Amino acid sequence: MELIEIFRNKMENSGIKAYIIPTSDYHNSEYISDYFKSRQFLSGFTGSQGTLLITLDFAYLWVDGRYFIQAEKQVNDKFIKIMKIGTLNTPTIEEFLDNYLNDGDVLGFDGRLMNTNLVKSIINTVRSKITIKDETDLVNVVWPDRPSLPFSLIYKLDIIFAGKECKDKITELRAELEKNNTNLFVLTALEDIAWLLNLRANDITHTPVFLSYFILSKNEAILFIDKKKINSEIKAYLKENGIKVKDYNDFYEHLKTYDGKDILMDLNKANYKIYSILNAKNVIVNKQNPTTLMKAIKNETEIKNTKAIHCRDGAQVAKLMYYVKNSYDNKADISEISAAQYIDNLRSELNGFVDLSFTTISGFLDHGAMMHYSATPESDYKIDKPGFLLVDSGGHYLEGTTDITRTFGVGKINDEMKTNFTIVLKSMINLSRAVFLKGCNGQNLDILARGPIWNELMDYKCGTGHGVGYLLSVHEAPNGFRWQRVAERNDSAVFVPGMITTNEPGIYLENKYGIRIENEMLCVPKGQTEFGEFLSFETITFAPIDLDCIKVALLTKEEKAWLNEYHEMVYKKINKYLTKQEKDWLKIYTRKI
Amino acid sequence: MELIEIFRNKMENSGIKAYIIPTSDYHNSEYISDYFKSRQFLSGFTGSQGTLLITLDFAYLWVDGRYFIQAEKQVNDKFIKIMKIGTLNTPTIEEFLDNYLNDGDVLGFDGRLMNTNLVKSIINTVRSKITIKDETDLVNVVWPDRPSLPFSLIYKLDIIFAGKECKDKITELRAELEKNNTNLFVLTALEDIAWLLNLRANDITHTPVFLSYFILSKNEAILFIDKKKINSEIKAYLKENGIKVKDYNDFYEHLKTYDGKDILMDLNKANYKIYSILNAKNVIVNKQNPTTLMKAIKNETEIKNTKAIHCRDGAQVAKLMYYVKNSYDNKADISEISAAQYIDNLRSELNGFVDLSFTTISGFLDHGAMMHYSATPESDYKIDKPGFLLVDSGGHYLEGTTDITRTFGVGKINDEMKTNFTIVLKSMINLSRAVFLKGCNGQNLDILARGPIWNELMDYKCGTGHGVGYLLSVHEAPNGFRWQRVAERNDSAVFVPGMITTNEPGIYLENKYGIRIENEMLCVPKGQTEFGEFLSFETITFAPIDLDCIKVALLTKEEKAWLNEYHEMVYKKINKYLTKQEKDWLKIYTRKI
Repeated sequence: MELIEIFRNKMENSGIKAYIIPTSDYHNSEYISDYFKSRQFLSGFTGSQGTLLITLDFAYLWVDGRYFIQAEKQVNDKFIKIMKIGTLNTPTIEEFLDNYLNDGDVLGFDGRLMNTNLVKSIINTVRSKITIKDETDLVNVVWPDRPSLPFSLIYKLDIIFAGKECKDKITELRAELEKNNTNLFVLTALEDIAWLLNLRANDITHTPVFLSYFILSKNEAILFIDKKKINSEIKAYLKENGIKVKDYNDFYEHLKTYDGKDILMDLNKANYKIYSILNAKNVIVNKQNPTTLMKAIKNETEIKNTKAIHCRDGAQVAKLMYYVKNSYDNKADISEISAAQYIDNLRSELNGFVDLSFTTISGFLDHGAMMHYSATPESDYKIDKPGFLLVDSGGHYLEGTTDITRTFGVGKINDEMKTNFTIVLKSMINLSRAVFLKGCNGQNLDILARGPIWNELMDYKCGTGHGVGYLLSVHEAPNGFRWQRVAERNDSAVFVPGMITTNEPGIYLENKYGIRIENEMLCVPKGQTEFGEFLSFETITFAPIDLDCIKVALLTKEEKAWLNEYHEMVYKKINKYLTKQEKDWLKIYTRKI
Repeated sequence: MELIEIFRNKMENSGIKAYIIPTSDYHNSEYISDYFKSRQFLSGFTGSQGTLLITLDFAYLWVDGRYFIQAEKQVNDKFIKIMKIGTLNTPTIEEFLDNYLNDGDVLGFDGRLMNTNLVKSIINTVRSKITIKDETDLVNVVWPDRPSLPFSLIYKLDIIFAGKECKDKITELRAELEKNNTNLFVLTALEDIAWLLNLRANDITHTPVFLSYFILSKNEAILFIDKKKINSEIKAYLKENGIKVKDYNDFYEHLKTYDGKDILMDLNKANYKIYSILNAKNVIVNKQNPTTLMKAIKNETEIKNTKAIHCRDGAQVAKLMYYVKNSYDNKADISEISAAQYIDNLRSELNGFVDLSFTTISGFLDHGAMMHYSATPESDYKIDKPGFLLVDSGGHYLEGTTDITRTFGVGKINDEMKTNFTIVLKSMINLSRAVFLKGCNGQNLDILARGPIWNELMDYKCGTGHGVGYLLSVHEAPNGFRWQRVAERNDSAVFVPGMITTNEPGIYLENKYGIRIENEMLCVPKGQTEFGEFLSFETITFAPIDLDCIKVALLTKEEKAWLNEYHEMVYKKINKYLTKQEKDWLKIYTRKI
C-alpha cells in the first residue's frame, strides 16, 4: 500500500478529515534537519519549500514557481496533485480548506510545525464550524526509521569573537521588555538564541545553531535544551549568566504555567502551539524579536573580525580563479565539482574555519543560469570549452560568515557575454556607491542595482541581496535589497550602520549562461548635514572581478574609478596570502583599466 | 469678547466639552472655498492644513512642520496653543482627547467636515465613555458675515476633449461595482464626479469642479447639486445619460433611505457623516474609488490633447525666459510679480485657456528657496542682480492641465550655483530615463531623482512628483514619486501606461536660492520580454532648460545625449509659436552642448 494511503488510514482512525504537513521545524528555521523532513518523506518532493495537505479524498502539494517543474517530476500524480502557487485558478490552502471542510470536520496538524499566522488565516477563511487537532505528529506513526532529532555539542564563542558578553545582551533585552510594557519574552528563533547566549553548535547543516527555546523575564532566564548537548563548562557558564537550564521536551508543559502575563513574542517566528497555549491566559504583544535587530547591527569586534576574515576568505577565491583559468589554459582536468572542492578545501584549511556557510554552487555554461544549481556526478560539466563558470560560496569562521560570488570567463568570451558581464558589474557598482538618507530600506535602493539590467529589458527573479549573520545563518533578516515586499521574508528593514548585506545582481539566460557578481557591504555613516543623516556602504569582500570579461567602453568614468580603486584594495588586502606565482598573476588581474 | 470665547459660550450652551474644526470641505478637497475656512476664521491662521480643537478650558491648533513658524506668528497664544505635529512630547489629537475627556463628556464637530478614519481613530483611542455630537456646524452661529457656498455655472467638456463618453464611463463603473460584489457606489470626491460626468465648473479656485455628490446603483444614477448651477442644456445632457438630479442639500436625508445594501465607498474620501448614516443599516466595502484609477489612466484623446497643449504652454515659458533674460540684460524694470504676470497673461490669451492650474510661484534669490513662496507687493524683489529666478506655473485648458518649473539664471552665475543647477538637472534626467518592470511604484523609483542630490549630502523635503489631472486638480493621486509612504497622500500606486506624473527634483538653500526643474512625464510601455513587461516615461513638457547654468563637464555622455535630444525636440515643437526674435534666441538656447 502507498505511504499516503497508510497515512490516510491513520487519519481516519483519528477522525481527521484533512491534515497539513508544512516544511518546517519547531523554530521556523530556513533550513531543517532530517528529523523534520516529513513532507519530503511522504511526498518524495525534495525542494526547500512546500506544503502538503492530505485529505480523506486525495492529497495536494502547494509549491512556488521555483519548484513547479521539480515537483511534477518527483511527485506521483496518482496520489498527489501539484498546486502551483500564484497561477490562475489555483486556490490558496486556506481557500481550498474553506471549500473542502464542512461543519463538524476535524483539521489536523502538529501545532509545533505550523506558522501562527497561517493557522490564524485558515481559521479566518474557513467558514464551516470545524475542530482543530494540533496535538499529534501523525507522521511519526508511519515513519518507523525516522532520523532522530539532531544532536551536536554546544561550544562557547569567545568574547574576542562575539564582542559583547551574554549578560550585557540580556540586560539590553530586559530593557526592551520593559520598553514594550511586557514582563515575559519567549524566543524560539535558533539564530537569535545562539547570538544572545554567545553559544554555537551544529544541529542544522551549515547553520551553527542548536535546537532550543529561551524564556526571559525580569528575574528569570530559562534555556530549554537537550541537556546532553552541554558539558560542565557550558553548564557553569550558563549558571554564571543567571540562566537556568530545563529540558527541551519540557518547554510546552512549562508554558502552561504562565497566567496573566504580557508576553513579547514574534508571531512570524513562534509556532502555533506556543501561541495557542500562551494566548489562552496571557496577553500576547506581537512584535519582531528585539534580538533580530540587535544581532543584525554588528558590534565593533564583529565588524573588525569580519573584515579580517574577508581578506583571508577572498584570497581563497582569488586562488580558485587562478586555478580555474590556469587549468583551462593548460587543458588540465577540471569540472564544476572539482572547482567547488578546490575552494571548499582551501577554506577548510583556514585557521578558525567552522563550516561552509552553504553548499558551494559551481555552475558552468547553462548550469550557471539555474539559480540553485548543485552539481552532481551525473550533471557535472568538464570545464573544457569557452564560457562562464559561476561560483557562489562562503564559509563560517570564528571571525564571521562570508558569502561571495564570482563569475570567471575561460577561453574566448564573446561580445554579447562581455556586454552582459559589464552590465551586471555596473549594477553591482551602482548599488555599492549608494548614498542615502537614514530611513531608506531595500525597496528604495534596489533599483540602483536592478536599473542597469532593467535598461536592457532583462531582470533577475530574486532579491538583490540579504543580510548575513555572524557565524550564524548566511541569510539573516531584517535587512535586504528587494523591490517588492515579500511578507514572509521580513527583509525590508531600514538600514542602520553596522548591518551587513550582500549585493548580488545577475543576468541568467536559460540554457545559455549565468552571471552573478556578489560582494558583502557594511552600512556606515556618511555624514550629517542640515539636510539630515546620510549613510552609505563599505565593501568588505575582497576578490578580483574578472577583467577578461569586461567591456571598458561601457563603464562610466565613476564606475571605472570605483573598479580600479576596488582592485587596488583587493591586491593590498589579499596578496600576502598568495604564492609568488599567484601574486604576480593577481597583480595583472587587479590592474588599472 | 474674543471670538474663541464667544464660540466657547455656544459650546457650553450645547453641552459640548470639546469641538474639532478641521481644514476641509464636505468632499475632502485639497483646496477649499471661502465658505469652509472656519479654522482660519476662528484662529487667524491662514495655512492650507491644520486642525483646531476648542475645549471649555483652552484651544489648540495642530500644524505640521511647514507651518510651525507661520502659525506662531498668526495665532494669539493667549487663546490658542500651537501643537507641533511630530515633535517630542506633542500628543496627537487622539491622545490629547483621550487625556482630556471623561466619562459622560460630549465631543462635537460637523460630521460632514471630518475624515472618517480620523473619527474612527479618535473613537478607538479615547477610553472614556463619551458622546459624539456630529450634527451641527457650530461655527455658523458665530460667523454672521460668512461667505456663501461657492456658485459657478456648470459646462460640458466636449467629447473631443474628454475622449470618452459619460455613459461609457458609467458602464465601466457599474462593472466595477459588480466585480466588488457591491450594489451601491457613493462618490463624494469632486474631481472624480467632474471626470465621470464630463462636466466642469469653477467652484474652487484653480480647480474646475462643482460641489456635488453622486450615487450609482445598477439601475440608478443620482447627482446631488445646487440645481441653479445647471442650465437646460446640461439638464438634458444628464437626463440623456440616465442621471437624476437632486438638490445638494437633500443628500444626507436621501442616504437614510438605504438599507441592507453592500456599498462601495472610499473612506479616505467620504466624510464621517456619510459613513455613520450608511454604516448603521448597510455593509460598507472600503476601497479606493474605482474612478481614481480610471481617471489617472488618461485615454488616447486626453493624451493627444495634453501633448498638444504642452507645446503651446511650453512656448509661453520660453517667451518668459526670453523676457526675463532680456529685461535683465537691458536693465529694464522687472520683478517677481511682473514676471509672474507676464506668463499668466501669455497663458490666458491662449485658445482654450480656462484658468491657471495654481497661483504662479515666482521666487528670486532666497525667495526661490521657500517652496510655497507667493510674492506680495511687500516682498516683491526686483530682478536687478545676478541670481536664480524660480518660476513654477501652469494652466488649465480644454486640452488638459500643465505644471512646469524652470529656474532661470540672470547675470553671472557662480561656480557653486552652476554645480547645484547641474546636479538638479542630472536628477531630473536620471528619473526621465527610467526603465522599469511593471509593478514599480514611486517609492521604487524616487532614488533615481534623489540619488544625485543625496550624493552631495543634500535633500529636498517633499515628494519628487505628483500625478496631474486633465482639466482637474493639478495634484492628482494615486501616482507620484516619494521615497517614504505618506498615508494621507495615497500616491504610491503602481505605474500604468497613461498616467501623467511630474518630475521635479530641487535644491533649496535657505537664505540663498532655490533650483527646481520640473517636467511632466507620461508612462508608456517599453517592451515585453521573457523577463516581463517593462515601462518607461515619455517627457511631454517642452521648454528650454537654461544652458547658462549648466556645467557640461558634470554630465555623463548619456545625460548630455538626453539633454541635446530634448532641446532639439523643444525647438521643433514650440518654435512656430514664437516671434522671429524669440525663435533665433531659442535656437541658441536649445543648441547641442
